[in-house]
Amino acid sequence: MNIVLLCVGKTQEAYLREGIREYERRLQHYISFKRIELPDIKNTGGLTIQQIKEKEGLLLLKNVGIQDCLVLFDENGTTYSSKQMSFQIEQHLSKGTKSLLFSIGGAYGFSPQVYERAQAKWSLSALTLPHQLVRLLCVEQIYRCFTIIRGEAYHHV
Amino acid sequence: MNIVLLCVGKTQEAYLREGIREYERRLQHYISFKRIELPDIKNTGGLTIQQIKEKEGLLLLKNVGIQDCLVLFDENGTTYSSKQMSFQIEQHLSKGTKSLLFSIGGAYGFSPQVYERAQAKWSLSALTLPHQLVRLLCVEQIYRCFTIIRGEAYHHV
Repeated sequence: MNIVLLCVGKTQEAYLREGIREYERRLQHYISFKRIELPDIKNTGGLTIQQIKEKEGLLLLKNVGIQDCLVLFDENGTTYSSKQMSFQIEQHLSKGTKSLLFSIGGAYGFSPQVYERAQAKWSLSALTLPHQLVRLLCVEQIYRCFTIIRGEAYHHV
Repeated sequence: MNIVLLCVGKTQEAYLREGIREYERRLQHYISFKRIELPDIKNTGGLTIQQIKEKEGLLLLKNVGIQDCLVLFDENGTTYSSKQMSFQIEQHLSKGTKSLLFSIGGAYGFSPQVYERAQAKWSLSALTLPHQLVRLLCVEQIYRCFTIIRGEAYHHV
Protein backbone atom coordinates (compact mmCIF):
# COMPACT_ATOMS: atom_id res chain seq x y z
CA MET A 1 0.00 0.00 0.00
CA ASN A 2 1.07 3.60 -0.62
CA ILE A 3 0.14 6.32 1.79
CA VAL A 4 -0.03 9.88 0.48
CA LEU A 5 -0.59 13.01 2.55
CA LEU A 6 -2.15 15.74 0.41
CA CYS A 7 -1.84 19.21 1.93
CA VAL A 8 -3.09 22.57 0.72
CA GLY A 9 -0.26 25.10 0.66
CA LYS A 10 3.42 24.97 1.55
CA THR A 11 4.46 24.33 5.16
CA GLN A 12 5.62 27.79 6.21
CA GLU A 13 7.29 27.26 9.56
CA ALA A 14 10.78 25.76 9.57
CA TYR A 15 10.16 24.02 12.92
CA LEU A 16 7.10 22.24 11.55
CA ARG A 17 9.00 21.16 8.42
CA GLU A 18 11.69 19.73 10.65
CA GLY A 19 9.26 17.78 12.82
CA ILE A 20 7.35 16.47 9.80
CA ARG A 21 10.60 15.30 8.17
CA GLU A 22 11.61 13.50 11.37
CA TYR A 23 8.41 11.41 11.46
CA GLU A 24 8.50 10.83 7.70
CA ARG A 25 12.02 9.48 8.06
CA ARG A 26 10.80 7.01 10.69
CA LEU A 27 7.66 6.15 8.73
CA GLN A 28 9.67 5.11 5.63
CA HIS A 29 10.72 1.95 7.51
CA TYR A 30 7.12 0.76 7.55
CA ILE A 31 5.36 1.94 4.41
CA SER A 32 5.78 3.84 1.16
CA PHE A 33 4.84 7.38 2.18
CA LYS A 34 4.72 10.58 0.16
CA ARG A 35 3.67 14.10 1.16
CA ILE A 36 2.32 16.38 -1.56
CA GLU A 37 2.01 20.07 -0.80
CA LEU A 38 -0.24 21.76 -3.35
CA PRO A 39 0.61 25.32 -4.39
CA ASP A 40 -1.14 28.07 -2.44
CA ILE A 41 -4.02 29.81 -4.20
CA LYS A 42 -2.93 33.40 -4.76
CA ASN A 43 -5.77 35.62 -3.67
CA THR A 44 -4.87 38.60 -5.85
CA GLY A 45 -8.33 38.95 -7.41
CA GLY A 46 -10.20 39.36 -4.11
CA LEU A 47 -11.67 35.87 -4.09
CA THR A 48 -14.28 34.94 -1.49
CA ILE A 49 -13.56 32.16 1.02
CA GLN A 50 -15.93 29.96 -0.94
CA GLN A 51 -14.03 30.59 -4.17
CA ILE A 52 -10.67 29.89 -2.52
CA LYS A 53 -11.98 26.59 -1.14
CA GLU A 54 -13.32 25.60 -4.55
CA LYS A 55 -10.06 26.35 -6.34
CA GLU A 56 -8.12 24.47 -3.68
CA GLY A 57 -10.59 21.60 -3.98
CA LEU A 58 -10.19 21.30 -7.76
CA LEU A 59 -6.41 21.22 -7.41
CA LEU A 60 -6.67 18.64 -4.65
CA LEU A 61 -8.98 16.36 -6.64
CA LYS A 62 -6.57 16.39 -9.60
CA ASN A 63 -4.23 14.41 -7.36
CA VAL A 64 -6.82 11.77 -6.47
CA GLY A 65 -6.99 8.73 -8.74
CA ILE A 66 -10.23 6.83 -9.41
CA GLN A 67 -9.19 3.87 -7.27
CA ASP A 68 -7.62 5.88 -4.46
CA CYS A 69 -9.22 5.84 -1.04
CA LEU A 70 -9.49 9.45 0.17
CA VAL A 71 -9.66 10.15 3.90
CA LEU A 72 -10.06 13.75 5.07
CA PHE A 73 -8.79 15.05 8.37
CA ASP A 74 -11.69 17.16 9.48
CA GLU A 75 -12.89 18.61 12.79
CA ASN A 76 -16.29 17.01 12.22
CA GLY A 77 -14.92 13.60 11.35
CA THR A 78 -14.97 10.40 13.40
CA THR A 79 -12.90 10.54 16.56
CA TYR A 80 -10.53 7.62 17.01
CA SER A 81 -8.06 6.61 19.65
CA SER A 82 -4.62 5.77 18.23
CA LYS A 83 -5.44 2.06 18.52
CA GLN A 84 -8.71 2.50 16.66
CA MET A 85 -6.97 4.52 13.97
CA SER A 86 -4.30 1.84 13.57
CA PHE A 87 -7.11 -0.71 13.19
CA GLN A 88 -8.62 1.39 10.38
CA ILE A 89 -5.26 1.48 8.58
CA GLU A 90 -4.79 -2.25 9.15
CA GLN A 91 -8.16 -2.89 7.50
CA HIS A 92 -6.95 -1.06 4.41
CA LEU A 93 -3.75 -3.13 4.39
CA SER A 94 -5.67 -6.38 4.60
CA LYS A 95 -8.36 -5.54 2.05
CA GLY A 96 -5.64 -4.56 -0.44
CA THR A 97 -6.18 -0.80 -0.75
CA LYS A 98 -3.47 0.33 -3.20
CA SER A 99 -3.40 4.04 -2.36
CA LEU A 100 -4.61 5.52 0.88
CA LEU A 101 -4.73 9.30 0.54
CA PHE A 102 -5.02 11.45 3.61
CA SER A 103 -5.83 15.09 3.09
CA ILE A 104 -5.58 18.17 5.28
CA GLY A 105 -7.45 21.20 3.99
CA GLY A 106 -6.36 24.82 3.88
CA ALA A 107 -7.19 27.50 6.44
CA TYR A 108 -10.89 27.40 5.51
CA GLY A 109 -11.38 23.64 5.16
CA PHE A 110 -12.58 21.58 2.20
CA SER A 111 -14.97 22.40 -0.64
CA PRO A 112 -18.24 20.45 -1.01
CA GLN A 113 -16.75 18.60 -4.03
CA VAL A 114 -13.92 17.25 -1.87
CA TYR A 115 -16.34 16.09 0.84
CA GLU A 116 -18.37 14.34 -1.85
CA ARG A 117 -15.37 12.46 -3.23
CA ALA A 118 -14.01 11.35 0.16
CA GLN A 119 -14.61 7.87 1.57
CA ALA A 120 -14.18 8.96 5.18
CA LYS A 121 -13.58 11.87 7.55
CA TRP A 122 -11.37 11.40 10.59
CA SER A 123 -10.95 13.91 13.39
CA LEU A 124 -7.60 14.34 15.16
CA SER A 125 -9.03 16.60 17.84
CA ALA A 126 -12.20 18.46 18.78
CA LEU A 127 -10.01 21.56 19.00
CA THR A 128 -9.42 23.89 16.09
CA LEU A 129 -5.74 23.55 15.24
CA PRO A 130 -3.58 25.40 12.71
CA HIS A 131 -3.80 23.36 9.49
CA GLN A 132 -0.01 23.39 9.21
CA LEU A 133 0.44 22.02 12.74
CA VAL A 134 -2.09 19.31 11.87
CA ARG A 135 0.43 18.00 9.32
CA LEU A 136 2.89 17.26 12.11
CA LEU A 137 0.20 15.56 14.21
CA CYS A 138 -0.89 13.58 11.21
CA VAL A 139 2.53 12.12 10.24
CA GLU A 140 3.28 11.40 13.92
CA GLN A 141 0.00 9.57 14.22
CA ILE A 142 0.41 7.53 11.02
CA TYR A 143 3.86 6.56 12.29
CA ARG A 144 2.39 5.64 15.68
CA CYS A 145 -0.30 3.55 13.99
CA PHE A 146 2.37 1.44 12.27
CA THR A 147 4.24 0.87 15.53
CA ILE A 148 0.91 -0.32 17.01
CA ILE A 149 0.22 -2.57 13.99
CA ARG A 150 3.69 -4.10 14.41
CA GLY A 151 3.31 -4.39 18.18
CA GLU A 152 6.33 -2.17 18.79
CA ALA A 153 7.22 -0.12 21.84
CA TYR A 154 6.72 3.52 20.73
CA HIS A 155 3.06 3.62 21.80
CA HIS A 156 3.92 4.65 25.39
CA VAL A 157 6.69 7.17 24.73
CA MET B 1 -4.36 35.87 36.39
CA ASN B 2 -1.13 33.92 35.88
CA ILE B 3 -1.02 30.87 33.68
CA VAL B 4 1.68 28.30 34.35
CA LEU B 5 2.42 25.24 32.24
CA LEU B 6 4.07 22.54 34.35
CA CYS B 7 5.82 19.86 32.30
CA VAL B 8 7.66 16.74 33.35
CA GLY B 9 11.12 16.62 31.77
CA LYS B 10 13.02 18.90 29.43
CA THR B 11 11.73 19.45 25.88
CA GLN B 12 14.22 17.38 23.88
CA GLU B 13 13.52 18.29 20.27
CA ALA B 14 14.81 21.63 19.01
CA TYR B 15 11.90 22.01 16.59
CA LEU B 16 9.38 21.64 19.41
CA ARG B 17 11.25 24.16 21.57
CA GLU B 18 11.13 26.59 18.65
CA GLY B 19 7.39 26.16 18.09
CA ILE B 20 6.63 26.45 21.81
CA ARG B 21 8.68 29.66 22.06
CA GLU B 22 6.84 31.13 19.09
CA TYR B 23 3.41 30.67 20.71
CA GLU B 24 4.70 31.78 24.12
CA ARG B 25 5.96 34.98 22.52
CA ARG B 26 2.48 35.64 21.10
CA LEU B 27 0.75 34.64 24.32
CA GLN B 28 2.70 37.20 26.39
CA HIS B 29 0.58 39.95 24.79
CA TYR B 30 -2.51 38.54 26.49
CA ILE B 31 -1.55 37.06 29.84
CA SER B 32 1.31 36.43 32.25
CA PHE B 33 2.52 33.00 31.16
CA LYS B 34 5.34 30.84 32.46
CA ARG B 35 6.45 27.33 31.46
CA ILE B 36 8.20 25.21 34.09
CA GLU B 37 10.01 22.10 32.91
CA LEU B 38 10.72 19.83 35.87
CA PRO B 39 13.97 17.85 35.85
CA ASP B 40 13.76 14.34 34.41
CA ILE B 41 13.77 11.50 36.93
CA LYS B 42 16.97 9.56 36.34
CA ASN B 43 16.09 5.88 36.23
CA THR B 44 19.49 4.58 37.30
CA GLY B 45 18.15 2.38 40.09
CA GLY B 46 15.79 0.34 37.91
CA LEU B 47 12.61 2.06 39.10
CA THR B 48 9.24 0.66 38.08
CA ILE B 49 6.88 2.82 35.99
CA GLN B 50 4.78 3.30 39.12
CA GLN B 51 7.80 4.57 41.06
CA ILE B 52 8.81 6.96 38.26
CA LYS B 53 5.29 8.38 38.15
CA GLU B 54 5.25 8.85 41.92
CA LYS B 55 8.60 10.64 41.97
CA GLU B 56 7.51 12.85 39.09
CA GLY B 57 4.24 13.50 40.90
CA LEU B 58 5.91 14.60 44.14
CA LEU B 59 8.15 16.99 42.22
CA LEU B 60 5.16 18.33 40.31
CA LEU B 61 3.08 18.90 43.44
CA LYS B 62 5.92 20.90 45.03
CA ASN B 63 5.20 23.52 42.36
CA VAL B 64 1.48 23.72 43.10
CA GLY B 65 0.41 26.29 45.71
CA ILE B 66 -2.59 25.77 48.01
CA GLN B 67 -4.72 28.32 46.16
CA ASP B 68 -3.63 27.33 42.66
CA CYS B 69 -6.14 25.78 40.31
CA LEU B 70 -4.55 22.68 38.76
CA VAL B 71 -5.82 21.42 35.40
CA LEU B 72 -4.29 18.25 33.93
CA PHE B 73 -4.07 17.55 30.24
CA ASP B 74 -5.07 13.93 30.14
CA GLU B 75 -6.32 11.52 27.48
CA ASN B 76 -9.30 10.67 29.70
CA GLY B 77 -10.21 14.27 30.44
CA THR B 78 -13.15 16.31 29.19
CA THR B 79 -13.08 17.00 25.47
CA TYR B 80 -13.58 20.62 24.54
CA SER B 81 -13.75 22.53 21.29
CA SER B 82 -11.47 25.59 21.21
CA LYS B 83 -14.48 27.81 21.92
CA GLN B 84 -15.52 25.72 24.90
CA MET B 85 -11.96 25.73 26.21
CA SER B 86 -11.77 29.51 25.88
CA PHE B 87 -15.03 29.73 27.84
CA GLN B 88 -13.47 27.65 30.63
CA ILE B 89 -10.48 30.01 30.78
CA GLU B 90 -12.79 33.02 30.69
CA GLN B 91 -14.66 31.63 33.69
CA HIS B 92 -11.39 31.53 35.63
CA LEU B 93 -10.63 35.12 34.62
CA SER B 94 -14.02 36.33 35.79
CA LYS B 95 -14.14 34.41 39.06
CA GLY B 96 -10.71 35.80 39.96
CA THR B 97 -8.53 32.66 39.84
CA LYS B 98 -5.03 33.92 40.67
CA SER B 99 -2.98 31.05 39.28
CA LEU B 100 -4.20 28.63 36.67
CA LEU B 101 -1.73 25.75 36.40
CA PHE B 102 -1.88 23.43 33.45
CA SER B 103 0.14 20.25 33.65
CA ILE B 104 1.31 17.73 31.08
CA GLY B 105 2.59 14.47 32.55
CA GLY B 106 5.62 12.46 31.57
CA ALA B 107 5.70 9.47 29.21
CA TYR B 108 3.65 7.35 31.64
CA GLY B 109 1.10 9.93 32.77
CA PHE B 110 0.30 11.22 36.26
CA SER B 111 0.49 9.55 39.68
CA PRO B 112 -2.70 9.00 41.74
CA GLN B 113 -1.61 11.85 44.08
CA VAL B 114 -1.58 14.31 41.18
CA TYR B 115 -5.03 13.20 40.00
CA GLU B 116 -6.29 13.68 43.54
CA ARG B 117 -4.98 17.26 43.79
CA ALA B 118 -6.26 18.38 40.38
CA GLN B 119 -9.44 20.40 39.96
CA ALA B 120 -10.02 19.24 36.38
CA LYS B 121 -8.81 17.03 33.53
CA TRP B 122 -8.99 18.30 29.98
CA SER B 123 -8.32 16.21 26.90
CA LEU B 124 -6.65 17.71 23.82
CA SER B 125 -7.28 14.65 21.67
CA ALA B 126 -8.55 11.08 21.88
CA LEU B 127 -5.27 10.09 20.23
CA THR B 128 -2.17 9.17 22.17
CA LEU B 129 0.35 11.91 21.42
CA PRO B 130 4.00 12.29 22.44
CA HIS B 131 3.95 14.22 25.72
CA GLN B 132 6.52 16.66 24.35
CA LEU B 133 4.43 17.39 21.25
CA VAL B 134 1.47 17.98 23.55
CA ARG B 135 3.35 21.00 24.96
CA LEU B 136 3.28 22.66 21.55
CA LEU B 137 -0.44 21.88 21.11
CA CYS B 138 -1.11 23.19 24.56
CA VAL B 139 0.57 26.61 24.20
CA GLU B 140 -0.96 27.03 20.74
CA GLN B 141 -4.38 26.28 22.17
CA ILE B 142 -4.03 28.60 25.17
CA TYR B 143 -2.96 31.32 22.74
CA ARG B 144 -5.96 30.52 20.50
CA CYS B 145 -8.30 30.68 23.50
CA PHE B 146 -7.17 34.25 24.24
CA THR B 147 -7.72 35.33 20.63
CA ILE B 148 -11.25 33.88 20.94
CA ILE B 149 -11.85 35.63 24.29
CA ARG B 150 -10.75 38.92 22.67
CA GLY B 151 -12.79 38.27 19.53
CA GLU B 152 -9.73 38.41 17.32
CA ALA B 153 -9.15 36.92 13.89
CA TYR B 154 -6.70 34.06 14.50
CA HIS B 155 -9.42 31.48 15.10
CA HIS B 156 -9.74 30.61 11.38
CA VAL B 157 -6.07 30.58 10.39
